[in-house]
Amino acid sequence: MNLRIPGPTPCPEEVLHAVGKQMINHRGPEFCELLTKITGQLKDLFQTKNDVFVLTCSGTGAMEAAVVNTLSPGDRVLGVSIGVFGERFAQIAETYGADVKRLDFEWGTAADPEAVRGALAADPAIKAVLVTHNETSTGVTNDLGALSRVVKEFGKLLLVDAISSIGSIDLPVDKWGCDVVVTGSQKGWMVPPGLAMVSVSAKAWDAYAAAKIPRFYMDFGKAKSYLEKGQTPWTPAVSIVYGLAVALDLMQAEGWTNIIARHGRLGAFTRSGVKGLGLSLYADEKYASNTVTAVNVPPGVDGKKLLRMMREEKGVVLSGGQSRLDGKIFRVGHLGYCHEPEIANVVETLREYLPKAKANS
Amino acid sequence: MNLRIPGPTPCPEEVLHAVGKQMINHRGPEFCELLTKITGQLKDLFQTKNDVFVLTCSGTGAMEAAVVNTLSPGDRVLGVSIGVFGERFAQIAETYGADVKRLDFEWGTAADPEAVRGALAADPAIKAVLVTHNETSTGVTNDLGALSRVVKEFGKLLLVDAISSIGSIDLPVDKWGCDVVVTGSQKGWMVPPGLAMVSVSAKAWDAYAAAKIPRFYMDFGKAKSYLEKGQTPWTPAVSIVYGLAVALDLMQAEGWTNIIARHGRLGAFTRSGVKGLGLSLYADEKYASNTVTAVNVPPGVDGKKLLRMMREEKGVVLSGGQSRLDGKIFRVGHLGYCHEPEIANVVETLREYLPKAKANS
Repeated sequence: MNLRIPGPTPCPEEVLHAVGKQMINHRGPEFCELLTKITGQLKDLFQTKNDVFVLTCSGTGAMEAAVVNTLSPGDRVLGVSIGVFGERFAQIAETYGADVKRLDFEWGTAADPEAVRGALAADPAIKAVLVTHNETSTGVTNDLGALSRVVKEFGKLLLVDAISSIGSIDLPVDKWGCDVVVTGSQKGWMVPPGLAMVSVSAKAWDAYAAAKIPRFYMDFGKAKSYLEKGQTPWTPAVSIVYGLAVALDLMQAEGWTNIIARHGRLGAFTRSGVKGLGLSLYADEKYASNTVTAVNVPPGVDGKKLLRMMREEKGVVLSGGQSRLDGKIFRVGHLGYCHEPEIANVVETLREYLPKAKANS
Repeated sequence: MNLRIPGPTPCPEEVLHAVGKQMINHRGPEFCELLTKITGQLKDLFQTKNDVFVLTCSGTGAMEAAVVNTLSPGDRVLGVSIGVFGERFAQIAETYGADVKRLDFEWGTAADPEAVRGALAADPAIKAVLVTHNETSTGVTNDLGALSRVVKEFGKLLLVDAISSIGSIDLPVDKWGCDVVVTGSQKGWMVPPGLAMVSVSAKAWDAYAAAKIPRFYMDFGKAKSYLEKGQTPWTPAVSIVYGLAVALDLMQAEGWTNIIARHGRLGAFTRSGVKGLGLSLYADEKYASNTVTAVNVPPGVDGKKLLRMMREEKGVVLSGGQSRLDGKIFRVGHLGYCHEPEIANVVETLREYLPKAKANS
């Protein structure tokens, strides 16, 4: 199978071998050593001196954690959205009582830092800004460096959904002043789903101290106090921690700049491959993501039939469009454990099946 | 290693083999089939026609889910507690704004149904009752059948922490009218941690419709709407789902009555084994748990040293006491993938190391 969705991503054999290991005591010395080691490695890859915690939940759970640990009901929040996941971040904040001002950009484009500046200047009550680094639903990577500079000019709290970016795309957390950054194990980390990783800045801790949204399972304060003894407050997904430990060693061996460069090559290779088939990208190419490529379903092709045939007949698994893009685009994931041959296989399979997946036939 | 803590519990080889399998699309047909199958099997083992959901979190996360999906801030709740986990359930409800009336029983004893009756009669405003079925911290199993009869006499909502009971100890969810029942994969289910399983009754759905505590990641309504298409709302811990599928087949093959009987035998075997060493049980033996046995550290023995020596020198891993029982008891887990030889090994190792683990030596 060639699993080319934006997550879960395929795992290296060494990772799967580790994931299948027998249980240990999550309160014992062996687990303590493991958690302490991976926390340090994660800090390196997050390029941060901030606290980093491993939570047992999906990326969405970690987005919720970012919100409930830093905000109070009624807090004015700017929700910058360029797609499904930006909208989800805003919805989570609204669910917990934040007063969310939406700043939506046309899907397929990136957020405009000047528009963010305008929104912040117009509404001094805004306390925090929610931003998606890489929007999986549209295949767009925001210019988070530029966005964060604007947010920091105004001294606002910056909560970042980096679920499908960090680990694959450069995100220097401290340099950019990102206060909470969240990701999920099943993305660029080459590990099965089940864990989320979050970084928490000093400014985020100040917000935490004042934040009144209730929290228990996702409580950063509990995570911090347990991490001091090399533990998590609640029983963690031990198997996935095993896998993450191996994956982080693999990432360290490859080297961070090499990982970013590889994803850059894979993004370009995917885009040129699909364009070579006469297909068009959904995203504005200036901001096209190096972890997931969204492709317009061409006229006369049934996008769902295309994906079904490729999956059933060739074992090539792509994702469809989400929400209002359902049936209109398909998406190719190229993050984590991915190299050129898998993408070449996707392109060749598309070449074969695009003519076979005619609409109304 | 002989891992004899109350969870994570050891997993059978077949389960670990499945846990180590490669990723698939969690929105594809293969995962849909898997989730649909295990949901049906879980309903059988929960002895329920209620909805059953698989969440990606620990058991504590599922306790939180029980609270946030059924209660509103200010709701009067009776928190029946016989130890650390009963206290945790009450704390979660309080964190989310419930007005919790504590009904604490002496640790080591079970909750008295007549006292629950008295509390409910005295305070008609109580809307829901929180009960721990099996209290892992003290090794006591509440008489949940009797407790549920009282709660149902008064027509109250019954939220049950069955984390370390269901799957090992009989809990006929529908017969006893339990409205929300939560458990964790790393207990009797013989699967690594990372998943929680919950059942939700019609009465709990009525409470859900009125409940005002905010929820997003843990939202039962979202879980229900996605389960209709064989999915979870957020990316699930796929590896642990693989493992659970195999474990449920193993449990089905063993048979539910055989599983309960085996845990009954293991509980009795453990109790007689430690008593044969001259040790005393922490729990009132009438209510001693068949999944975990709490043993008093005898005078003159350093409980921490005992556990450390057994672990380091013999690979026998037991748990210490939690909270105010730290250093005063140790606990032997005998739930899930456990048989007499592992317990005999614990007893023999205790026999050898009790004299070696003298206090102040």
